[in-house]
Formats: sequence, structure tokens, C-alpha cells
Amino acid sequence: MTLHKVIYDTDPGVDDAMAFVLETLHPEIELIGVTSVFGNATIDTTTRNACYLAGRFAPAVPVARGAGAPLEGEAPTPLAAIHGDDGLGNIGPSEDGTVSPDARAASRFIIDSVRAHPSEVTIVAVGPLTNLALALAEDPSIVPLVKQVIVMGGAFGIGGVNGNVTPAAEANMFGDPHAADLVFGAAWPLTIVGLDVTHRVVMSTSYLASIRDRGGVAGRFVWDVSRHYEAFHRDTENIEGIYVHDASAVAYLLAPQLFTVRKGPVRVLTEGIAAGQTIQKPEGMPCAAPAWDARPSCNVCVGVDADGVLALYERALCGAQ
Amino acid sequence: MTLHKVIYDTDPGVDDAMAFVLETLHPEIELIGVTSVFGNATIDTTTRNACYLAGRFAPAVPVARGAGAPLEGEAPTPLAAIHGDDGLGNIGPSEDGTVSPDARAASRFIIDSVRAHPSEVTIVAVGPLTNLALALAEDPSIVPLVKQVIVMGGAFGIGGVNGNVTPAAEANMFGDPHAADLVFGAAWPLTIVGLDVTHRVVMSTSYLASIRDRGGVAGRFVWDVSRHYEAFHRDTENIEGIYVHDASAVAYLLAPQLFTVRKGPVRVLTEGIAAGQTIQKPEGMPCAAPAWDARPSCNVCVGVDADGVLALYERALCGAQ
Repeated sequence: MTLHKVIYDTDPGVDDAMAFVLETLHPEIELIGVTSVFGNATIDTTTRNACYLAGRFAPAVPVARGAGAPLEGEAPTPLAAIHGDDGLGNIGPSEDGTVSPDARAASRFIIDSVRAHPSEVTIVAVGPLTNLALALAEDPSIVPLVKQVIVMGGAFGIGGVNGNVTPAAEANMFGDPHAADLVFGAAWPLTIVGLDVTHRVVMSTSYLASIRDRGGVAGRFVWDVSRHYEAFHRDTENIEGIYVHDASAVAYLLAPQLFTVRKGPVRVLTEGIAAGQTIQKPEGMPCAAPAWDARPSCNVCVGVDADGVLALYERALCGAQ
Repeated sequence: MTLHKVIYDTDPGVDDAMAFVLETLHPEIELIGVTSVFGNATIDTTTRNACYLAGRFAPAVPVARGAGAPLEGEAPTPLAAIHGDDGLGNIGPSEDGTVSPDARAASRFIIDSVRAHPSEVTIVAVGPLTNLALALAEDPSIVPLVKQVIVMGGAFGIGGVNGNVTPAAEANMFGDPHAADLVFGAAWPLTIVGLDVTHRVVMSTSYLASIRDRGGVAGRFVWDVSRHYEAFHRDTENIEGIYVHDASAVAYLLAPQLFTVRKGPVRVLTEGIAAGQTIQKPEGMPCAAPAWDARPSCNVCVGVDADGVLALYERALCGAQ
């Protein structure tokens, strides 16, 4: 059994919370830290939520507060219509039992953790990539020491869309396009799990009800936290059920064979009407493209065994049937 | 039987020539003019080729010389590796029998023809859209008089790529992104036939050989003109056969039921590393997007019955079996 040391960089966020539960319950993951970032809600709210989640499901895991705004400009408006006013589907997280944040900033926490466990740490980043970009700027020498980076974000049109908060940009990329372009340009093994696959992994109401009934405290929490989110999907996205964004990135860590990847350097547009758009030059594309050709290859997920991802999540919460 | 009055705006170009043959042979098309534009080759070469093609296959049809460079900047390098040094697969077009160009510039020819046949003219544009943008600038009042515009160009990632000359841009969009953004912003009925579908319509060597053997003079020409182009596809694109770009736009005119379209405004990026990228906001996408929301809806082809397109082309050249 592989044991993955994971830093979870997150802006909880409903689906962030659902992915967090998976990380804490799966026997192959050793969660060594949680770093918060603005995104689905303000940094105050996402940090509070991260501390709440750690307190409930992983009280020994440190939480480090991260960036409250992107490298340039201001943080976008929180996505309250999607994630609720509290960022957790309006469940009203209690203050009881929350953990206190680490004294270090998220970027410093990432650097220290990577240096403490060279070649062992996977960073699963499911919000704007500001913390990772700050860590790169503070200490670029961590790059070869990171085992891999798995990013939930972006969209490459394969699934029919290039974004969800604009016609060109997925929310995490839109939140800090400069950071994303830096992170995708660093020479660490990096995989992007974007809307092309996460829109294909859908948890239906009956799936979630089954998790609720069979998954104990965690299953009940997954149900409760997803009620507002599910209503948003029904009313606005016109689907029955919810997209599985962040947990799909965790699933990639645990079972990469469930995904089809395409290799090639990726740029993120930082200016103009398409800021936040992700564009890959697939390996083998015959044209010269100087803005891509000098950069390292990334894995972009272009296909997924959705049933496999759903089964993985269900097994982690409810055990083998 | 519908009879379509067509202006063919083109930069021949091998696949332009193959589409031209279809236009001249199909009984439902009345070709009322050909306008040349830079693109696959220089404007001198594409105009010469248009005059050659008209001379061989449609000697009564006027040819008007168009733009030699985009609205801003310089024309990209001709695609000789794809279309040959002569733009026609190195067949060496003869000077005998070529027609002489019309005295009018392409943009003026377009305006005059649309005004002469209000609500009757379809413009099939398969090169950079400079001539159409110039016509719009010279006489914006033609917009409601045009029956429809069908553009071969762009790519929306659905087929796996956003471009062919850069990771973000298809050649016709890259050739004049400013013109394309203007043309897609005009309130005429407009359909985009991009790489998402044209990469799925492939004429195999055996298909082309059958056209050669059964299609008379036109069939022989299609075979000859496509030899260099086919070698490029084999050597560089790693496919056996050739993509059917421009003839797919003609097929859309004749048989729109062979295509699946998605509606919504389209922008073309004009600056930066992704200049020439086409981005649609599909109808129903819930986010606000000011750069798209004030613009008219375009049809973007997202699916195609490739066998149907191939059968249509074959029938036009070889007759019913």
C-alpha cells in the first residue's frame, strides 16, 4: 500500500469539505497539513472552515492560514450562491472543537513541510494557486523536492466548456491567473484535474442519500453540507446531482488509472476578457509555440472513469460492500 | 430545391479548391462571385489561384481581389508546407484560360452583390475574415441584407484542440483576429464550422482515389491537388487521409442537418499569446459575461455526421450510385 503524505491547499467550500472527508478517511493518505486560501469565500471564512473541518475529522492535522487575495488585484466576490454564506452550504459550522491555526503562513508551512519530507509530499491544491506561487517565490529550491502537485482547476473545452465563472475561465484559475501560470510553469510533476473531467463525475441525490445512510458521521456530514450546493446545481446548472470537483483531484492521487491524461505545457491567460483561461500545447502538436515550448509538460486530465471515482469515494466513506 | 446564391471568400489553398469544385458542381448552389484573401498563400498567389479555378470550373463567375494583409499588423507566413509553394499542392496551375479579376475590390464586390440580391446571398468565408470586416466597415447597412454567413475557422476545444497554427488559434482566426471578432459581432445569421468538426471529416486515400476514378475532370483535379496536402497530413498530423475543412462549410450550407450546433455569442482574442482563439458563451450559461452578453448569438458546429458530409461531396462529383 502506498502512503501519500498530502498537503491540502483549499478554500472550503462545499466540495472542498467533501474531498477533505475523503482525505481523512482513506487509509492510503496521511494528511500532514491543510493550507487555506481565499476563493469560494473570504480568507477569514475559508480558514475558519478549514479549522472546523480539521477539528471534526482530523484534529491532529495543522492548519495554516494562506493568502487573502491574488498576486495581482483583488479577490473575486465569494461564491455564496454556490457554497452558501458560510462557505459550507449554510450548515452553520460550530466554533466548538475547531483547531487553532498554525503560527506560520501557508506558503512557509508548505516550504517547511516539503523540506522536512523531501520527495514525499503531494500537494493537492483545489483553490486559487496563490499559496503555491508564494511558496515558489520564497523558496524556488523546493520544486525538485515535491513529489507531485495535483490541481483542481481549469478547463480545456473538451467537455464543452472553457470555464464556469466566465466563458473562458474556471473559478480557481480566475481567482489568481498569475499564480496559476507560475505554478504550471514550475518543473515539478503536475496534474490538472479540470472541468473536462469533474463535470462528468456527478453524485446524484440517491448516491448522496446512500452515503448519508451508510457512512456514519462523515456520511451524514456529506449529506448536510451538500444540500445548498445540490439546490444550486438543480436551479442553475440544470443537473440533478452535484459536480465532483475537488474529490476528483483526490481520486487522481489514489487511482490515477481512472483518468486519461494528455501531456504538454500549459499556459494560463492573465489579462483581457479570457483571463484565467487554460491552454495546453499537447505533445506532438507540430507548430512552434514559443510561449509554451520552453515550459515543462503538465498532465491534463481529458477522460475519467466516473463510476470508478464514485465507487472509490463511496468505499472510503461506507467501507467495502 | 433551394437555390443558394453564394459568394465564396477564399484563400486557395488546397481544401479551398476542393470546396470550390463542390460549389461549382452542386445543383443547389449558384455561385455569384469569388473573393480572394491572403492566408494559405500571398494575395497574389491566392488571387491567381482563384482566377485559375474559376477559369477551369466556372468561367462566368467573377473573381474580385481582396485584402493582402490583416486589419492590423502583417500577413502571417504562407503555409507552403501544407498547401505547396503555389498554394495548390504544387500542381503548377496553368495561365491558360484563367479569368481576369473584377475591377472592384473584394469588399466592394461583396457590398454590391448583397445590395443587388437583398436577403438572398450566403457568404461562405474560408480564409481570414478581412474582406468581410472591410465590407462591414464600408457599409454596415448590408448586415440585415445578408442571408447568412458561414465561416470555416476557429476551434472550441471540443475536438481536443483550440488551434492548429498555435495551441490557441486556427489559421484563419490567427490570420486576422481583429476582423474575425468584428464579423462574429455583426448581427447577421452566422455559423462557424471549426476544427471541432472539420478534424472529424477525413477523406482517406481510397476515398480520394475513388473520386479520381469516377469524378471525371473534377475528380482527377481533386486527386492531383490533394497529393501534397495528403503527404503533409501523413508526415506531420500523423493521419492517413486529409481533413476536410472548407468543403465542410459548404456542406453546412447544403445540409445543415448533418451538423449539431451550439448557440451563443463568440469572441476572438486579438492580443497576447492566445491571439486568434475563439471563445463562445453557450446560451444558458448562468454567469454574467459583459464581453459576450451584448453580442449576437452565433451557431458553432460542435458535432457532425462525417459520413454524411463525405457522401454529399462524393455524390456531387460522381453522381448518385
